[in-house]
Amino acid sequence: MTVHIPVLEKITKANDQIAGINRAQLDRHRILGLNLLASPGAGKTTLIERTLPLLGRELRVGVIEGDLATNLDAERVIAVGAPCVQVHTGSCHLDASMVRDALERLPLPELDVLLVENVGNLICPATFALGTHFNVLLASVPEGHDKPYKYPSMYRAVDLLLVNKMDLLPFVPFDMQLFRKGVEALNENLETLPLSCLSGAGIESWVDWVRSRAQKQFAAL
Amino acid sequence: MTVHIPVLEKITKANDQIAGINRAQLDRHRILGLNLLASPGAGKTTLIERTLPLLGRELRVGVIEGDLATNLDAERVIAVGAPCVQVHTGSCHLDASMVRDALERLPLPELDVLLVENVGNLICPATFALGTHFNVLLASVPEGHDKPYKYPSMYRAVDLLLVNKMDLLPFVPFDMQLFRKGVEALNENLETLPLSCLSGAGIESWVDWVRSRAQKQFAAL
Repeated sequence: MTVHIPVLEKITKANDQIAGINRAQLDRHRILGLNLLASPGAGKTTLIERTLPLLGRELRVGVIEGDLATNLDAERVIAVGAPCVQVHTGSCHLDASMVRDALERLPLPELDVLLVENVGNLICPATFALGTHFNVLLASVPEGHDKPYKYPSMYRAVDLLLVNKMDLLPFVPFDMQLFRKGVEALNENLETLPLSCLSGAGIESWVDWVRSRAQKQFAAL
Repeated sequence: MTVHIPVLEKITKANDQIAGINRAQLDRHRILGLNLLASPGAGKTTLIERTLPLLGRELRVGVIEGDLATNLDAERVIAVGAPCVQVHTGSCHLDASMVRDALERLPLPELDVLLVENVGNLICPATFALGTHFNVLLASVPEGHDKPYKYPSMYRAVDLLLVNKMDLLPFVPFDMQLFRKGVEALNENLETLPLSCLSGAGIESWVDWVRSRAQKQFAAL
């Protein structure tokens, strides 16, 4: 019982072509591109706020903020001192052309890592490649352990899973074993890092992951 | 910097027509229709599980479950004993034609209230009328107080705001005053009910709201 919109297939093909151009541009500038995906309020912007000071000791980071309407997230990122472009999507996901336009407004020769914060949504962002190298999904404990079962396309599409708000685990009915089982069924051996953006626990492991991916990325080029 | 999809306007016009047909059908059967909207994991299904036994003492309730892919939510609702139709949207929102098809599979002459659980998403569901009488948004405390600022179209489109997971308020940085200020700027005097589906606090006020709306609805017809 689905509505088939014929225009969608054409859009995603055109999108993939532009994503390829974005990827080539990131590679040319030796920039590791990460696409951050999550539900609304899972903690993407707070993660970026936490990450920038730690990564910034050795890597230069730029940010693209995708939001339906406001500049609130970009203001938070700029306050931490990173070059940031806000994209108002007007719709439920970023696409490759929006990222292409944003890349033109970033100082690419001065960057090592690009963090793209996608729109808070577990459905459409999984369909639109942006040209980034890895998809990083930020789940959060109060959302519940059933999310991999309910949003399989998203959990299949990602290369790293962060589980945020671990500090709330004692207060909510979240069964980590059921969650892991759902994840494994969709995306075997998906690397998973538990953390808390509030307490800071686990952030260092995520920063290590970015650091090592950036090193491998640069070595491969 | 938005992508304009020309087909969208036509789709929403056709959708509105079907929504009108759905509304007429609900009215003919004297059924109050509520469209439940929220982020993924805000607690919509748990709210329905909590609501059914309380409402069911005097009102007969049917449920339409909108999900991207699985039957998990419908199974939870059926376990509580309500007639329920699962719609697999394959996309990020329910539309009126999906609800029309689902209505055909529900025992309408035996119902007083229809709860439609929309797909977990704070963007597209605000654009697609279903034919229900009221839009009910379920926010949740761990999502953060910035959500009305970031998803204005959703907060403008609703008739009742439930704030779930109030039990987590001591553990998360949620500023209720800032949240309220954002809501008021978009939707003045929007009725707001705080509650906790986990502890049960505040559920009775929500059930009273449904009960009184159902009475007014039947009186008006």
